[in-house]
Amino acid sequence: MSYSSREVHLLSRPVGEPTPVNFELVTITLPALQPGQVLVRNRYLSVDPYMRGRMVDRKSYVPPFRLGEVMTGGAVGEVVESNGGPFQAGDWVQSMHGWREAFVSDGRGLSKVDPALAPLPAYLGVMGMPGLTAYVGLLDMGKPQAGETVYVSGAAGAVGSIVCQIAKLKGCYVAGSAGSDAKTAWLMQTAGVDAAFNYRTTPVPAGLARSCPNGIDVFFDNVGGGTLEAALGRMNDFGRIAACGSISLYNATRPEPGPRNLGLIVPKRLTLQGFIVSDHDDRMHDFYRDMSRWIAAGRIKWEETVYSGIDNAVPAFLGLFSGKNLGKMVVEI
Amino acid sequence: MSYSSREVHLLSRPVGEPTPVNFELVTITLPALQPGQVLVRNRYLSVDPYMRGRMVDRKSYVPPFRLGEVMTGGAVGEVVESNGGPFQAGDWVQSMHGWREAFVSDGRGLSKVDPALAPLPAYLGVMGMPGLTAYVGLLDMGKPQAGETVYVSGAAGAVGSIVCQIAKLKGCYVAGSAGSDAKTAWLMQTAGVDAAFNYRTTPVPAGLARSCPNGIDVFFDNVGGGTLEAALGRMNDFGRIAACGSISLYNATRPEPGPRNLGLIVPKRLTLQGFIVSDHDDRMHDFYRDMSRWIAAGRIKWEETVYSGIDNAVPAFLGLFSGKNLGKMVVEI
Repeated sequence: MSYSSREVHLLSRPVGEPTPVNFELVTITLPALQPGQVLVRNRYLSVDPYMRGRMVDRKSYVPPFRLGEVMTGGAVGEVVESNGGPFQAGDWVQSMHGWREAFVSDGRGLSKVDPALAPLPAYLGVMGMPGLTAYVGLLDMGKPQAGETVYVSGAAGAVGSIVCQIAKLKGCYVAGSAGSDAKTAWLMQTAGVDAAFNYRTTPVPAGLARSCPNGIDVFFDNVGGGTLEAALGRMNDFGRIAACGSISLYNATRPEPGPRNLGLIVPKRLTLQGFIVSDHDDRMHDFYRDMSRWIAAGRIKWEETVYSGIDNAVPAFLGLFSGKNLGKMVVEI
Repeated sequence: MSYSSREVHLLSRPVGEPTPVNFELVTITLPALQPGQVLVRNRYLSVDPYMRGRMVDRKSYVPPFRLGEVMTGGAVGEVVESNGGPFQAGDWVQSMHGWREAFVSDGRGLSKVDPALAPLPAYLGVMGMPGLTAYVGLLDMGKPQAGETVYVSGAAGAVGSIVCQIAKLKGCYVAGSAGSDAKTAWLMQTAGVDAAFNYRTTPVPAGLARSCPNGIDVFFDNVGGGTLEAALGRMNDFGRIAACGSISLYNATRPEPGPRNLGLIVPKRLTLQGFIVSDHDDRMHDFYRDMSRWIAAGRIKWEETVYSGIDNAVPAFLGLFSGKNLGKMVVEI
């Protein structure tokens, strides 16, 4: 018996904003299971901003996607058939196999997830890579102290929304910026931040002047560009900037000038530190321990924005760059 | 009996490059000594790039110079008269009293220096603030490991020339850039760096490609601007940038765009850290211990560029911005 699966391939490398023509939905026939192999049917696919970087053919911390091959990335699926090995039919597993409905695997790179501990899509968000990113970036790079001001850009996204709440748990004053009034309302009412502003209607310098009356001690940056420049201007002496990403620049067709006030890092003695979550597997244990406890105590809230069907993987991904997501963007299939 | 002294006042705040019209040489009559006071006649005045920042009226880590008052800064002089207190006639003392021939002091802010341990102007350079800047910035911010590549901009200056040699003592491969062939020759032949280039005749990206074949692990930046951009492009993963200053930008009349490739700090996991030497008095003891030992062993060389007469304090200061100095620029009076 053979199964077919649809998967999304990268067809061409985008210049500027990706469009649907850069992708192709391909139907393949899955091979029969060899001994030790499993058949996994994905339930949730992850779309993440960092994937934009992998669409460019250059050396970086992860190899670029290859043309004509699957858009790999996080996914959660069910083992529907097992031919021996550690996984049984009915197990839920996480993989980096990406945008495909189903796949055959020898089990390498799969890890079990427990749907009783957290809802399945949470393993792609608050309990997964974005959650660990928030935890490591804020705590290890930002080093926030109780009473300090933490400013989070992209504050209603998968990472930012968790950063805001961990910072509150650590006793900080927290301000966030996001791209809609609905998002800032969520930040104030659900995430419990102290201040939030909509960067589409309030210029960031003005938003920061109002939201961070005592300056900024820790800036967790998901956005870059003008947001970084505005934050540099408002940083306090000895401030720390955790540079997580710069989504405002990912689709730029030419290099954008950096912040004109970068020289402030000297008189203000700032530290600007870039990081990549995959370097910090050693923090996974602490992260799971703390996050499970916070979730169980109802102290961390999260949202998912769910698109349906693998044919919506590309629109979901593209939606990240126009801010269509509140919390984690996932595709359910 | 009364003495007169000439001193340099800031007359107006420069826009762009300072010129002699921004300063005034004023003759004053020194007051008679009160009990506990001393009369100090300065022998060496320090001129330093950071003083440019103090000429601007803005809040920063040191208060701005005030119009109509002395350009304060490092100086070494001799106690020529003492009316009691801890200092005796014949003592050599260091102060922050700046660009004046002589002054009366109650002793606060004075500290003795030993001309037998190091030549007097060295207390304004290798054994003084610039030396400590090099030591702290390289070791504490840059954290170089033996075998790593250290790149130093402004490598033939008061700070850079010492950074290069400490990095060599720590077993690093060292490359430096400077503004003349005479300076690069000094770096190669006297400071013992592994590679040097003249940024006025070799574009920095090309100079770095040739001088740092294995990339850059630690960048000690005195220059900023395009030099920082070029270095970012050549940094290795997990590289550290000690941001000491950005002399290329100090006379800018409008904010210059920052490096277009600043986003590289995320995929390369770079740390960019600004620092100010006066925050690191706790390292003074280690610095004196190590530097005295290195100097005694002949393992650190240094140069001074000496202008003569207090009427040459302004030309000496202005000369910093066109690279007239090899090593520490001082004024002897």
